[in-house]
Amino acid sequence: MAFAHHHLLGIAGLTPPEITALLDLAEEAVDVSRQVEKKKVALKGRTQINLFFEASTRTQSSFELAGKRLGADVMNMSVKNSSVSKGETLLDTATTLNAMHPDILVVRHNAAGAPQLLARKVGCSVINAGDGAHEHPTQALLDALTIRRHKGTLEGLVVAICGDIMHSRVARSNILLLTAMGAEVRLVAPSTLLPDSVEAMGVKCFRDMRKGLDGADVVMMLRLQLERMNGAFVPSIREYFHFYGLDEEKLGYAREDAIVMHPGPMNRGIEIDSSVADSGRSVIHEQVEMGVAVRMAIIELLAKNSLDIQPAELD
Amino acid sequence: MAFAHHHLLGIAGLTPPEITALLDLAEEAVDVSRQVEKKKVALKGRTQINLFFEASTRTQSSFELAGKRLGADVMNMSVKNSSVSKGETLLDTATTLNAMHPDILVVRHNAAGAPQLLARKVGCSVINAGDGAHEHPTQALLDALTIRRHKGTLEGLVVAICGDIMHSRVARSNILLLTAMGAEVRLVAPSTLLPDSVEAMGVKCFRDMRKGLDGADVVMMLRLQLERMNGAFVPSIREYFHFYGLDEEKLGYAREDAIVMHPGPMNRGIEIDSSVADSGRSVIHEQVEMGVAVRMAIIELLAKNSLDIQPAELD
Amino acid sequence: MAFAHHHLLGIAGLTPPEITALLDLAEEAVDVSRQVEKKKVALKGRTQINLFFEASTRTQSSFELAGKRLGADVMNMSVKNSSVSKGETLLDTATTLNAMHPDILVVRHNAAGAPQLLARKVGCSVINAGDGAHEHPTQALLDALTIRRHKGTLEGLVVAICGDIMHSRVARSNILLLTAMGAEVRLVAPSTLLPDSVEAMGVKCFRDMRKGLDGADVVMMLRLQLERMNGAFVPSIREYFHFYGLDEEKLGYAREDAIVMHPGPMNRGIEIDSSVADSGRSVIHEQVEMGVAVRMAIIELLAKNSLDIQPAELD
Repeated sequence: MAFAHHHLLGIAGLTPPEITALLDLAEEAVDVSRQVEKKKVALKGRTQINLFFEASTRTQSSFELAGKRLGADVMNMSVKNSSVSKGETLLDTATTLNAMHPDILVVRHNAAGAPQLLARKVGCSVINAGDGAHEHPTQALLDALTIRRHKGTLEGLVVAICGDIMHSRVARSNILLLTAMGAEVRLVAPSTLLPDSVEAMGVKCFRDMRKGLDGADVVMMLRLQLERMNGAFVPSIREYFHFYGLDEEKLGYAREDAIVMHPGPMNRGIEIDSSVADSGRSVIHEQVEMGVAVRMAIIELLAKNSLDIQPAELD
Repeated sequence: MAFAHHHLLGIAGLTPPEITALLDLAEEAVDVSRQVEKKKVALKGRTQINLFFEASTRTQSSFELAGKRLGADVMNMSVKNSSVSKGETLLDTATTLNAMHPDILVVRHNAAGAPQLLARKVGCSVINAGDGAHEHPTQALLDALTIRRHKGTLEGLVVAICGDIMHSRVARSNILLLTAMGAEVRLVAPSTLLPDSVEAMGVKCFRDMRKGLDGADVVMMLRLQLERMNGAFVPSIREYFHFYGLDEEKLGYAREDAIVMHPGPMNRGIEIDSSVADSGRSVIHEQVEMGVAVRMAIIELLAKNSLDIQPAELD
Repeated sequence: MAFAHHHLLGIAGLTPPEITALLDLAEEAVDVSRQVEKKKVALKGRTQINLFFEASTRTQSSFELAGKRLGADVMNMSVKNSSVSKGETLLDTATTLNAMHPDILVVRHNAAGAPQLLARKVGCSVINAGDGAHEHPTQALLDALTIRRHKGTLEGLVVAICGDIMHSRVARSNILLLTAMGAEVRLVAPSTLLPDSVEAMGVKCFRDMRKGLDGADVVMMLRLQLERMNGAFVPSIREYFHFYGLDEEKLGYAREDAIVMHPGPMNRGIEIDSSVADSGRSVIHEQVEMGVAVRMAIIELLAKNSLDIQPAELD
């Protein structure tokens, strides 16, 4: 198995064969969760710590079940970092946990780069579960697995990512993975939510859903990150839905067999209409299922490799 | 074993033989928790999710230990639903969890009917851990088990349920179970806490503790749900205790061998006096013990049946 | 093995041979956590409840991992006791949990004596994880283990405990353990943080770090409990650091091979300078590692003995 990494910090740095290998192992994990006894023993006697500086019920649950189904002891730690001086505490917290000999440290943090910083300081494998507006690699991997199961391959597909590109680590990780695997990625968003910098990532940008979705195999909606918008990015929710909310009419521009995706949790009636979200073309629930599978795969792979970690900066 | 249900949504719908079968299996579970190694393997490799939209340390702990002693992977999820649009999010949260392939979903929600709604949407067994003012079936079952162990049977017993009947799902589930099993149920409460509708449930209503407790085999006190009273249901705490708080004098009207019950947590000095709560006639701690046993039994039964669930509405 | 206690309520009451036996068993536990499969089966099928009335991510995590690595089912309960009437609820909560048949109850409470009170009421082993300003015995044991591993013995060592002695249960437990084992304990603090009563514990008191650290083998800094200071114990943080913060200059007065300790979490720049905290003389991370080991040892010992507990006051 050609997967020699100690950490999963982002999609950047993974090669297409590594991504393929990871998705192949995840396919096996799908079957594990569908059995009555949902167990592998790959992580027996080992310790996984979920260190969430940012709350996320859904992502944390997915990692928790993934770890438990692999046989690991899983410990959840929610750290409210509002009241702490950021940099110091982040490292002190992580090095303290590291002294308890975890094998896997799953980290979510509102600062881009936090998992990378930790990975240099600890003697275990670090998985980035979302860092600021930077990356959310397991989300991109579960999206890729879902697409591959429906379309057979990623290569040559037209994938339209729509909505709040600006604030989305999901978009960023997906762009990196999908372009690496040979898909054509289109971004569809109002100018205020579409940073100029993305053009350099080899994608096509659209302001009009009709043009952006024309002939798309996959329509991936993003959550409107209402809580992150401190400026006037969107004139009004109603107008946003009118121009960018996915309803049956706009979906009509995509291919007839196009699938609809959303990382969740959905703002129904804002970025997606319920008639589409609950339709037969929606694979949103399958994305959740694939999330557990992809996380089982990456935890298993990293746990094998973690035995050789010799952190340069560890005292 | 005659227990063919996929869910436990309420006492309503259970037959007396089913209740008896469940209590019999719970008796075995009592022994498991009293052993040094408190383990069965009935749920090995299976997943139980405790989804609590309403906080309850005691009930959640009981379900958590029950699941763990059966060998399940147990995951707790506390969802604050204050800020979310209720209906949609409830279903989205549940169907998201369902996509992670749980076997058992334990649900507490402040809206009556929430577990029933979920049960139609998910592919796993749903256990109602309390829904609004509707039902709390595992509480009624643990009460029944406690009574049966002390009195040998439920049939023919006189059970007085006292206090805030109006807001009590515990009362409602107990009325259903006890009348189904042939006990005589009396309700004792001030008029403002005793809805007219209960008369139709085949019970006798009393405003006077002396009359209501006369000859009772079981005195079941309810918690005064102070946090749910937005009107003037009770003139004052002091007056309430004077008329309806269980003290030694009022208990004197019951049978000499009457047992005293309370679902907990107690408001000492409000609905029950400490001299009674801590006396030899109190079986309050035993109720807690029976709670773990009853939950082990129902989880085990449902997990067996869950393999056949084919939800009609599941996509 | 000469360890016949049912509970660990404090260092007071432990004999030097008992302490030595506990540390010896903890040495074995160190190796368990350093293995790939970090598992013993001493607590298989048994139940540990962490009952924290006071939040402590670090201590609770340490107990949680210790219990899980011993094979126990571990359940965490965080109880916010701000809104509850203290005495009654403490006992009701504990006796309720006791009815669920735990084997080990780990208790942290902001009232001195709370674990002792509980221990008389429950039928399981109680471990004090910190009670008010009274004791924190597992912290003293992990400190002792860390020191012993570096110095070979505790006897005859000079240990300087510096900082907020007044509010520190860590200091109190350490004084008891270190003096019992034959170390010379010095306390270094401003007068306002150094209660007169400690003189009776057989220690020497200093107001000047230079004199207090002179020739010390171990420099143990305490956390400045900013949240507990409701009076003017310290003129200013800046001045405090100037006189009592451990920096390289002050550390220069200790022996050349002196080690630096801190129970964590550190207030960097207040009671300790980063240059010292992160230096090769700091054993702060090792303290965390020893914490898991010591807790594994005490849980294992108590679980063996818990089978004989017959609480006099238990109904």
